[in-house]
Amino acid sequence: MTDRPNVLWIMADQLRFDYLSCYGHPHLHTPHIDALAARGVRFTNAYVQSPVCGPSRMSAYTGRYVRSHGSTWNGMPLRVGEPTLGDHLRLAGARAVLVGKTHMIADLEGMAWLGIDPESEIGVARSECGFEPFERDDGLHPDSARQNWSAYDDYLVAQGFASDNPWEDFANSGRDPDGEVLSGWLLKNSRLAANVPEEHSETAYMTNRAMDFMAEAAADGRPWLCHLSYIKPHWPYIVPAPYHAMYGADHIQPPIRSAAERDTDHPLMRAYLEARVCRSFSRDHVRKHVIPAYTGLIKQLDDNLGRLFAWMDETGLSETTLVAFTSDHGDYLGDHWMGDKDFYHDVAVKVPLILCDPRRAADGTRGTVSDDLVEMIDLAPTFMAALGAPPKSHVIEGRDLTPILHGTGGFSRRYAISEHDYHWSEMARALGQPQQDAHTVMIFDGRWKYIRCEGFRPILFDLASDPGELVDLGASADEAHVAVRARMEAALTDWALRHHTRITATEAVLSGQALAAEEGILIGFWDEAEFEDVTGFAFDTLTPRGRD
Amino acid sequence: MTDRPNVLWIMADQLRFDYLSCYGHPHLHTPHIDALAARGVRFTNAYVQSPVCGPSRMSAYTGRYVRSHGSTWNGMPLRVGEPTLGDHLRLAGARAVLVGKTHMIADLEGMAWLGIDPESEIGVARSECGFEPFERDDGLHPDSARQNWSAYDDYLVAQGFASDNPWEDFANSGRDPDGEVLSGWLLKNSRLAANVPEEHSETAYMTNRAMDFMAEAAADGRPWLCHLSYIKPHWPYIVPAPYHAMYGADHIQPPIRSAAERDTDHPLMRAYLEARVCRSFSRDHVRKHVIPAYTGLIKQLDDNLGRLFAWMDETGLSETTLVAFTSDHGDYLGDHWMGDKDFYHDVAVKVPLILCDPRRAADGTRGTVSDDLVEMIDLAPTFMAALGAPPKSHVIEGRDLTPILHGTGGFSRRYAISEHDYHWSEMARALGQPQQDAHTVMIFDGRWKYIRCEGFRPILFDLASDPGELVDLGASADEAHVAVRARMEAALTDWALRHHTRITATEAVLSGQALAAEEGILIGFWDEAEFEDVTGFAFDTLTPRGRD
Repeated sequence: MTDRPNVLWIMADQLRFDYLSCYGHPHLHTPHIDALAARGVRFTNAYVQSPVCGPSRMSAYTGRYVRSHGSTWNGMPLRVGEPTLGDHLRLAGARAVLVGKTHMIADLEGMAWLGIDPESEIGVARSECGFEPFERDDGLHPDSARQNWSAYDDYLVAQGFASDNPWEDFANSGRDPDGEVLSGWLLKNSRLAANVPEEHSETAYMTNRAMDFMAEAAADGRPWLCHLSYIKPHWPYIVPAPYHAMYGADHIQPPIRSAAERDTDHPLMRAYLEARVCRSFSRDHVRKHVIPAYTGLIKQLDDNLGRLFAWMDETGLSETTLVAFTSDHGDYLGDHWMGDKDFYHDVAVKVPLILCDPRRAADGTRGTVSDDLVEMIDLAPTFMAALGAPPKSHVIEGRDLTPILHGTGGFSRRYAISEHDYHWSEMARALGQPQQDAHTVMIFDGRWKYIRCEGFRPILFDLASDPGELVDLGASADEAHVAVRARMEAALTDWALRHHTRITATEAVLSGQALAAEEGILIGFWDEAEFEDVTGFAFDTLTPRGRD
Repeated sequence: MTDRPNVLWIMADQLRFDYLSCYGHPHLHTPHIDALAARGVRFTNAYVQSPVCGPSRMSAYTGRYVRSHGSTWNGMPLRVGEPTLGDHLRLAGARAVLVGKTHMIADLEGMAWLGIDPESEIGVARSECGFEPFERDDGLHPDSARQNWSAYDDYLVAQGFASDNPWEDFANSGRDPDGEVLSGWLLKNSRLAANVPEEHSETAYMTNRAMDFMAEAAADGRPWLCHLSYIKPHWPYIVPAPYHAMYGADHIQPPIRSAAERDTDHPLMRAYLEARVCRSFSRDHVRKHVIPAYTGLIKQLDDNLGRLFAWMDETGLSETTLVAFTSDHGDYLGDHWMGDKDFYHDVAVKVPLILCDPRRAADGTRGTVSDDLVEMIDLAPTFMAALGAPPKSHVIEGRDLTPILHGTGGFSRRYAISEHDYHWSEMARALGQPQQDAHTVMIFDGRWKYIRCEGFRPILFDLASDPGELVDLGASADEAHVAVRARMEAALTDWALRHHTRITATEAVLSGQALAAEEGILIGFWDEAEFEDVTGFAFDTLTPRGRD
């Protein structure tokens, strides 16, 4: 037991909140993640700040809204001057180490402009979301300029899986009965076993690497946060044996969708429904073929986490480590006639979140469920608090969840926010929406989910009467709905107009300014007598101070 | 004549738009500034992005809203990663040189975090708003931690004006008949002649320094922008002979104010009216005593600009230099029962702006007046265009004014925005307003000025029927006013929700993303046939590309 735990922050990629047995999945049993929930707190209303990898993760790693950090879409570099959780921890004497994926693109232009060598220690941290890279692997290893050969590729080669692109040819392809390699990028191949034994899969490999790090860190002695960031169950949807054959069409839940959704008059929603990935996942045969593989990937992940947690129990690390489990966003899987993510239905924007805190103060909440409205950006300040780093409320926009973990009360959040920039997309092109205006934002108060669509009418769901989010009340003339829309729009305006970039207003700056004000700003005094009257000081004894 | 002028950007400090004869002042004649207007374009609707020095200037120097750059009040460092006009020009091969005041505070914490030595070339630029400092002088030289001995202090000492604080004792104090030094910080001393001959005043000194720079730059040959930034007519309100005696109570215009303004029920306005500087300038004897000094300071500035412009004519620089004249904000001087600045009446938030472009393309607009709604942030892109620097619309939020200067049409701006952070103030303390919520924002469409006050009702002026801004329609039940308020609030929401921080979205990033989309994102294809059908490529020939 400890008062100052280290932190293991596990993130899955594209894992829907409802694809775990502790979140109610009827066919997929995830006993190891469930056991973590039984030792910790399971959150039922955790929302990501963007329903897409890059911006969601940049928010997670900075503790700030997308609006604030500015990396609004995948491939958009996180600006060099944007401070991250890793930076805050490092300043406080703790390590922040990456094992896996961040989806970050380095701001090379910004580094060049500020004279920072990308190969220097500072430059490397700037290129890795502020983390110290122990193992970096962003998944998606096609031979494009953005993707590089990874240490996992080396590992595969060392295991005898050699090719020009081992990630693609082994970990993310299958074989037909004739031995021909078939790409996992094509959905029809989803039911094949991945062309690699499970123990050499990326999920298993990354699990091993996290153990390598934690073993090393125990010897090192400094406090640490380890971000173990899996690339699965993200597509390509293909999983090694035996997981490829564990689930079938009988384990597919019926899609959450209605005929009325297809008749939407909302131009943006119509454009979404026309996008290829949505058309694809609207087909039942696609769902029946792909979802079993997606389910298998999660089962595989759970088994690897079981292996990891058992090792942590053996080594005593479970006693000294706060374990967080979450995901960067969900996956539509055909619900609402949509595929992939990129919008705000719960299946895309709500994520599983489990926090297991080893401290004695958390004993009273073990196995409990929190329905508090929380955001992904709340993790950064929670981890900072656990590791003893001073809070930085002028930079971090998330809120420390420790009061929930310790049952002390005092946590509150009225609204969760999520943002999306679709400038790059089929929807923007179909609608002729200018790059600058191709954005949406969601605000959710625990019941009403209001989605503001720049250039179009809003969308509104009432999750109390319509938990499936099938009825869009965005154009409803019902007075109650009109009032809700007005309230949500006003709340959004409040939020948007908040300080999001005032990050140099340290406490020292603010208290210095307050102090200057207290001492009396020298403007507006007629004479010595008035000055002395107001300030209580003789004019001559005070150094004139200025402002403007 | 030239196609690629250099730029002389002259900024006065706290100069009201209506204290120049070309802007209609009945008693103050400013023939040299008027002559500049006769050679250029005079703007009648130019608004600053904050009615206070620091944030207004940070917007001017970055071309970005206060919301975007985050330096929301004086003394709040401009974050190290915030690109400025000077940076953009330097990348394009031009110099951006400072002569005078910026009001910038360096982000030393940010520099330390990014490993930037404040004394290095990059560090110095980061500490000076991106400018190369030729002469830096922020005015206000009391002996406080924020203020340093300046080159102008050295100059005073060299001229025989030696003391511990020559700026204070000579340039900004007077003497009574017995020779006793009396501080210009006290308003009662405003009518004394400053304790320095005019030719050694700060205004004269800085004018000389600009000439020094321009002479040197001509020899250097590189294109340049010179920011000549005067600290006057900002308080301390004291001016050397003979300017101290040029104006008297007869030259004071009647205050713009009404009895009804004093009876406002708006809590924030009531708090403003209770602030000391407002109470002080509400007294007629203060106005009559101080305004003549303020007027004299402007007359002195005009004479120095006359000297500067004559020299530029003689040296041929007038033919090759785009000259801009403006101010960082105005001064209430008792109007609306207020003093100093810090709010949004035109006397505080509207500034004089004259642009004199030597290019032949501007010949058709010389001596014209533009009523276009423009913002201070429009200057940065205008100067970048003049100096041939590529536009950076993903960073710069202002709009190039060249179409107005060249009479080609195409400039448009529907709304001007200004912001204010009063967390430090008497008003915030009196109202118990939390630091995070002590902010206001103005949106003006050329007729309606709407001021959103977080936590309080809005304020609304109709400048068409009420050009003096004496009647607050913020609580009016008139349907027309209700509709205007709703429209302005919606426009403000649109503006607030725009991308303000997406500054790494270079054209290369955006076109790369569009390209990836064009090539076909690989998600959602069932099989090779579908892929080939949609993309026109055989699946095998294409390198898989990913996104997520």
